Amino acid sequence: MPSLWNSLGLLPHFRGLWYDQGMDALGYYNGTWGPLDEMTVPMNDRGGYFGDGVYDAASAANGVIFTLDEHVDRFFDSARLLRIELTLPKEELKKTLNEMFQKVDRGEYLVYWQATRGTERRNHTFSSGPSNLWIMIKSIVIPDLCEKVKLITTEDTRFLHCNIKTLNLIPNVMAIQRAAEAGCHEAVFYRGETVTECTRSNVHIIKNGTFITHPANNLILRGVARNHLLGACKKLGIPAEERPFTLAELFDADEALISSTTTFGRAADAIDGKSAGGKAPELLKKIQNEVMREFVEETGYTPPAWQAGR
Amino acid sequence: MPSLWNSLGLLPHFRGLWYDQGMDALGYYNGTWGPLDEMTVPMNDRGGYFGDGVYDAASAANGVIFTLDEHVDRFFDSARLLRIELTLPKEELKKTLNEMFQKVDRGEYLVYWQATRGTERRNHTFSSGPSNLWIMIKSIVIPDLCEKVKLITTEDTRFLHCNIKTLNLIPNVMAIQRAAEAGCHEAVFYRGETVTECTRSNVHIIKNGTFITHPANNLILRGVARNHLLGACKKLGIPAEERPFTLAELFDADEALISSTTTFGRAADAIDGKSAGGKAPELLKKIQNEVMREFVEETGYTPPAWQAGR
Repeated sequence: MPSLWNSLGLLPHFRGLWYDQGMDALGYYNGTWGPLDEMTVPMNDRGGYFGDGVYDAASAANGVIFTLDEHVDRFFDSARLLRIELTLPKEELKKTLNEMFQKVDRGEYLVYWQATRGTERRNHTFSSGPSNLWIMIKSIVIPDLCEKVKLITTEDTRFLHCNIKTLNLIPNVMAIQRAAEAGCHEAVFYRGETVTECTRSNVHIIKNGTFITHPANNLILRGVARNHLLGACKKLGIPAEERPFTLAELFDADEALISSTTTFGRAADAIDGKSAGGKAPELLKKIQNEVMREFVEETGYTPPAWQAGR
Repeated sequence: MPSLWNSLGLLPHFRGLWYDQGMDALGYYNGTWGPLDEMTVPMNDRGGYFGDGVYDAASAANGVIFTLDEHVDRFFDSARLLRIELTLPKEELKKTLNEMFQKVDRGEYLVYWQATRGTERRNHTFSSGPSNLWIMIKSIVIPDLCEKVKLITTEDTRFLHCNIKTLNLIPNVMAIQRAAEAGCHEAVFYRGETVTECTRSNVHIIKNGTFITHPANNLILRGVARNHLLGACKKLGIPAEERPFTLAELFDADEALISSTTTFGRAADAIDGKSAGGKAPELLKKIQNEVMREFVEETGYTPPAWQAGR
């Protein structure tokens, strides 16, 4: 184990030898990389005391990072909105992410990366130096899309910049913890009567054959998986509306779905302990099959959970 | 300079010898300490990717951390509200902060500390391990209270937990940067017509002999300096109201003040480029003298800028 070598103080000397044998989690910081759990960053990185950065993440398997272009495009949008100057152009970033991903074992992974504004003694105004690139790659288990999830609802008290994928995630952390303690997978945020999104997923409903999802404004993150669900609807000729919907509509929906990079599009069978959805299983399945097909085609890999769930 | 020793790879070996000679900035992380600019933290610390932590900070001089009890009390309140379990009880934390403060040179300092929820591979639900204690001590210059500041106003788009002193500070960073680019000291946030606070200060007005400040609810941080301004008013027999006030009242105030750990209570002479305040200089001076007196009495130290400003 790398930690053994590291505890002997030998790790840096055996880097080339050791790391090429593969690992289940990798960390990268401004050109330096190693086992994620051993990596350090400067205390003066603005990520650590302001959460001053943006991130993105993609699921990956079989040596392929799924929908990488879309995630990198969104990452650049987030950085631009926070005026963070990225050090690598898009193609260089993709190359670096792919290079790092090749260093981990085969299997299912989340490839996560973030840019923090810089490294300086804590001072609110922008730092003068370059931004920092972090990469964190860890093994995950891609879940069975056909397995239902349980949700809670909670008031959306977040800031009004939810369109930017930032490192300011305390309200998300607090809400998902409450969901977990209630034995649920996700928490659905609402502002007034309007459902916005979840802590780390978008949320959508199907009603009378129509797919409905919150508009991609400043109240939600423009999810890549959300875009793919909309694309699937278009391809399948299923009407889709991007409009705000209410809590009442959520509870009354034929199906309620959440989507994210790792969940793709999973339906709920319970919200706040009341049974939910389950009234449009065939339409749901059509959409799920389409987004699954895209993943399998791009990566050449079918997650075991999907085979089991068929 | 410590960095010289460090570049030679000798720093760890000379720690005892070197550090006792003093430095202008110190970092501490879970029991390990050294020159701030050389300190590192684990990449898996939740501070770095969720901003999942709380902080507090106090000005310090002459070996004394000013109003430490009040800051530590508030720090514990912040941690409780985010369900972060602190590893050190209050008295132990104060002892550690004081011990670290004794290691830096004499002068004016900001003693800053934060607790992050824990260290684990990124996962939104709470980590299981202990929280992490960070301390960052850096030299500052305590400004002349009598020197006026310039302000801009900006919409308050922050989350609804501003009563908690968290590490989710991107909106604050973005606003203070805009203020700095406009040649101003601070940005005043407003929600609708109501003035809330600034990016790193509270804001108050004096009108017709009354001191007015936003109530300490979830829209502002309950500033220690704010409390001391209210205490000064009480002591001096100046009526004080804790109530929301509007942008129009701010512009029309006899005096507009900002207060924080390092600014104590400074008045503005311009807001959004228009001249402001300056209509109750004697009342302002009385209040400023009282909060300055407290600092000088507790620390036995008068900042050079204050002597110059007399």
